[in-house]
Amino acid sequence: MPQLAELFEDTLKDIYYAERQILKALPKMVRAAENQELKAAFKTHRDQTEGQVERLQQVFELLGKRARGKTCPAINGIIEECEELLEEMKEPGAVRDAGLAASGQAVEHYEMSRYGTLLAWAKAMGNADAAALLEATLNEEKETDKLLSQLANRSINKQAAQAAG
Amino acid sequence: MPQLAELFEDTLKDIYYAERQILKALPKMVRAAENQELKAAFKTHRDQTEGQVERLQQVFELLGKRARGKTCPAINGIIEECEELLEEMKEPGAVRDAGLAASGQAVEHYEMSRYGTLLAWAKAMGNADAAALLEATLNEEKETDKLLSQLANRSINKQAAQAAG
Repeated sequence: MPQLAELFEDTLKDIYYAERQILKALPKMVRAAENQELKAAFKTHRDQTEGQVERLQQVFELLGKRARGKTCPAINGIIEECEELLEEMKEPGAVRDAGLAASGQAVEHYEMSRYGTLLAWAKAMGNADAAALLEATLNEEKETDKLLSQLANRSINKQAAQAAG
Repeated sequence: MPQLAELFEDTLKDIYYAERQILKALPKMVRAAENQELKAAFKTHRDQTEGQVERLQQVFELLGKRARGKTCPAINGIIEECEELLEEMKEPGAVRDAGLAASGQAVEHYEMSRYGTLLAWAKAMGNADAAALLEATLNEEKETDKLLSQLANRSINKQAAQAAG
C-alpha cells in the first residue's frame, strides 16, 4: 500500500532537482536579457532560488531524510525550450526579451504547481513546519510570476510589437 | 530582426502540439482515477480540450496560417512524470489519485503560462479576435486547475493521508 508520505518525498526530490537546474539556468537568462528591469528580476530570483533550495533542505531534515534530487523531465523540458529560444534568436532585443519573460513564467508556473501540491499534502499530513516552509517559497514564486507579467505588459511586449520591421 | 509575430506563431505551434498530447494523455488519467469526481473532472477536461484545439485552429486561421504543431519538450516532460507515477503505483487508490490530481495541475499550470503569454502578445499586437479566443481557453484552464485543487483539498488528500498503513 503506497503512502502519501512516499509521494510527498518523491515530489520533494523532483522540485529539489528542478530548483538546482533553475539555479544553473538563471545566470544565462540574466546575461541574455536586454531590458534592465527584466535582467534585475532574473537576478533577484536567482538569489531567492538559493534560499528556496535551503528551505527544501530544511523540509528534508524535518522528514529525517537526506536532501536528494530526482531527475525532473518537466523542468528539463521547460529549460530546453528557453535554450531553443536563445539558439533561434542570437541577438538581444525586445522580442527575445518577450520570449525570455515567457520562459521565466513557464518556470514559475511549474514551481507554483509543485509547491502548491506539496503544501496541500504537508497540511493533509499535519506537518505544519514543512507547510510553513513550502508556503514561503510558493508565495515567492507567485510574486515572481506577477512581476514578470507586469514587466511584460508594461514595457517589453509593447517594444516587441513595435520591433516589427 | 525577429518579429513578435514569429514568436507568437512559434508559441502557438508549441501549445497546439501540447494540447494534442494532452488529448492523448487524458483518457489514461480518466481510466486511472479511482475517485469518481476526479474521473469526471478529467473526462470533462478531455472534452474541453477538443474545443481548445479548435480555438487554436481558429487562431492559426486568423493569422492566415495552417495549424501545425512543434514538439514541446515541456509538455512531454510533464506527461512523462505522470506516466512514471502510474508505472510506480500500479494499484488504484487515494494516494495514486492525489498524484494524478497533482499531474493534472502541472499540466494546467503549463497551459496557463503559455495561454497567458499568447493572450498578452495578441493584445500587444492589436489582434483582438485572437485575444478573445485565447482568453476563453485561459479561463477554462484556470477553472480546471481550481476544480482539481478543490477536489484534492476536500477529499482526495485527506483519504490519501489516512491510507497510510
